[in-house]
Amino acid sequence: MSLPAEFALIARHFRPLAGEGALDLSDDAAVLDIPAGRRLVIAADAMVEGVHYLPGDPPGTVGRKLLRVNLSDLAAMGAAPLGYLMTTSLARGMPEAWLAGFVAGLAEDQRLFGLTLLGGDTTATPGPTSLSLTILGTVEPAKVITRAGARPGDDIWVSGTIGDGALGLRVLQGTLPADTAGHLARRYRLPEPRLALGQALAGLVRAGMDVSDGLVQDLGHLCRAGGCGAVIDAAALPLSDAAGALLAADAGLLPLLLTGGDDYELLLAADPADRAEVTARAAACGMAVARIGRFIAGPAEVSVHAPDGSPLALPRGGWSHF
Amino acid sequence: MSLPAEFALIARHFRPLAGEGALDLSDDAAVLDIPAGRRLVIAADAMVEGVHYLPGDPPGTVGRKLLRVNLSDLAAMGAAPLGYLMTTSLARGMPEAWLAGFVAGLAEDQRLFGLTLLGGDTTATPGPTSLSLTILGTVEPAKVITRAGARPGDDIWVSGTIGDGALGLRVLQGTLPADTAGHLARRYRLPEPRLALGQALAGLVRAGMDVSDGLVQDLGHLCRAGGCGAVIDAAALPLSDAAGALLAADAGLLPLLLTGGDDYELLLAADPADRAEVTARAAACGMAVARIGRFIAGPAEVSVHAPDGSPLALPRGGWSHF
Repeated sequence: MSLPAEFALIARHFRPLAGEGALDLSDDAAVLDIPAGRRLVIAADAMVEGVHYLPGDPPGTVGRKLLRVNLSDLAAMGAAPLGYLMTTSLARGMPEAWLAGFVAGLAEDQRLFGLTLLGGDTTATPGPTSLSLTILGTVEPAKVITRAGARPGDDIWVSGTIGDGALGLRVLQGTLPADTAGHLARRYRLPEPRLALGQALAGLVRAGMDVSDGLVQDLGHLCRAGGCGAVIDAAALPLSDAAGALLAADAGLLPLLLTGGDDYELLLAADPADRAEVTARAAACGMAVARIGRFIAGPAEVSVHAPDGSPLALPRGGWSHF
Repeated sequence: MSLPAEFALIARHFRPLAGEGALDLSDDAAVLDIPAGRRLVIAADAMVEGVHYLPGDPPGTVGRKLLRVNLSDLAAMGAAPLGYLMTTSLARGMPEAWLAGFVAGLAEDQRLFGLTLLGGDTTATPGPTSLSLTILGTVEPAKVITRAGARPGDDIWVSGTIGDGALGLRVLQGTLPADTAGHLARRYRLPEPRLALGQALAGLVRAGMDVSDGLVQDLGHLCRAGGCGAVIDAAALPLSDAAGALLAADAGLLPLLLTGGDDYELLLAADPADRAEVTARAAACGMAVARIGRFIAGPAEVSVHAPDGSPLALPRGGWSHF
C-alpha cells in the first residue's frame, strides 16, 4: 500500500525537524516531561499570506518569522523555549520548493534557539496559505513576567529599537525608500525574540510584554492590567540609524513608529530604584534597553510627548485585523 | 483610547471560554502546572472551511468538531484533557452570529469534556475560514498508548461503529439518502472522542490510534509501526443501523466504509489472552468494542476479507489533502 502525498510531504519536510517527545511525528500526539520545579508556558500565533507576510517574502523568512513571533511571546513571559507544534494550511498548487525553503528556515532557527518540532497537521486550502504555531516553554514559577504589575512612578523600558518593522513593511511595499544595508526590510521579515533578555530580567521587572501591535497600543495593555496611565517621551525612543534617517527626512513618520507594530521588542515596567540593575542585566546579554517614559496615576491611557515637548495626537491605536 | 475590534471580539466571545492558567487571555502566554507524576500530551489539528467542514454546517458543530477531533488524539494516547489553544483565521465579512454560534458549541463541549481555553490568536483572512486547535492532556508515563507495539497474532479492535462519518458526509452532500433519525449526518458533524475508553484501556492494549483518515489507511500505520501485517474481516465490522441499511441496499458501499475517514473511533491492538478484559473495561465505560481481525507476520500491508470470504480490492488507501 503506497502512502498518499500528505504523508510523503510530512516525512520529507517535517520529520527532520522533529525532536525528543515528538514520537517521530508518526503518533497521534507528542508526549513530554516538564522538568520538575518549572511551569509550562504556552502560546499560539497565526500568520496568513498577504495579511501577516507578503506573498513575495522568501519562504525561509516566513518560517523563521512564524517561529520568532511565537518565541517573542515566551521572551515576554521570561520563559525558555521547549518546542513547538505547527499546523499548515497550504495554498493549493504551492510549489514544493516553497515548502522546502520554509522548512529550511525553521531548521536554521531551531538550531539558533534550541527547540524542535513536536507535532502538528498539514492540509491544503483553496485560499491563501494559513500558518499556525503553538510554542511551548518553561519558567520558574517565581519568575513569570506578566502584564499586570506596573505602578505609578515605574519606568517604561523597551529593548532594541522601535519602528523598524513598520518602516520595513513600507519599504517592501515600495512606499518608503530602502536603506542601503536592507536593515528595515530584514527587521520586518526577521524579528529578534529577546529570549535571553526576558529570562535575565524575570524576577526584577514588575510587568512586561512584547511589542507586536504597536508600542502605544501595547503599552495601553500594561496600563489596563496595572490600573495606571503612561507617558512616553518620543525623544527617548530608541531608533536604528535607518529609522532615524527616515524620521529626520520626514517628521510625520513619528506616529507610524509609535503605532506601526511588528517590533517584537520587550516593553517593561520597573522600579526606578532598579535602573542600574536593569541596564546591567541587559548589557550582560548584549542588549541595549532604553527608558522611554513612566507610568503615572490616572486612567489607563497612553500619552506621548513629541520631541518639542507638545502632546502628540495619534491617528490610530494600533493594528487590528477587523 | 478605544480598543480595536479584534480585542472586542476576543473579550466578547473567547474570554468566557478561558480557564485557570489562561491569565484571562490578556497575557502573551498561558502558564500551567503539570501535575507531578504525569506527562504532558499535546497535539494540533487544523480545519478549513470547505475542506474539513461544509460551509453550511451549523457553527456550533464546527466548533465542537474542531475540539473533538483533537480530543480524539488524546483518547488515542490514553490521555485525559487539560486545556486547549486555538487560532482562528476568520473569513472577512463573516457575520458575528457565526462566531457566537461557534463559541457556544465550544462552551458546551468544554463543560462536557472538562477543559478550558488557554490562549490563541484571532485574525482575518481573505480566504475561507481556517481554524487550528492545539490540545493539551496528561497521562501516567507507564500508560501511554502509542502506535508502535502490535505483534503478529494480536487482535484488531475498534470502538463504536465504522463508516458513519463517511456516509454522513455523502448524506450532507446529497449523494446518499438521509436516515430518518439524522444519525449519519450527526456522526459526521459531531464525532465522539473516546476519552474514557482510551484511559480505561491504557496499560492493557499493545498499540492504538484513532481512526481519522479511514480504517484501512490508519491500520496501515499500526502495521508499519509494529512491523507486521493485518487482515480485516469485513463481516465483523461494527455498523450502525443506518450504515447497515445503506450497505444492505448497496454492497458497493463497503470500500467507502473501510476507507472513508471521519470515524474518530479507537483502533487498538491487544493480546488475544486479554479479550475478556478488553470487553469488560469497555463495557465499564459504556462502550461497545468489536474484534475485526488480527495482525499477522509479514509486510506492513492491510488486506480485507469480504463478507463472502474473498479478498476485497480497495480503490484507494485513504484520505489525503494533496
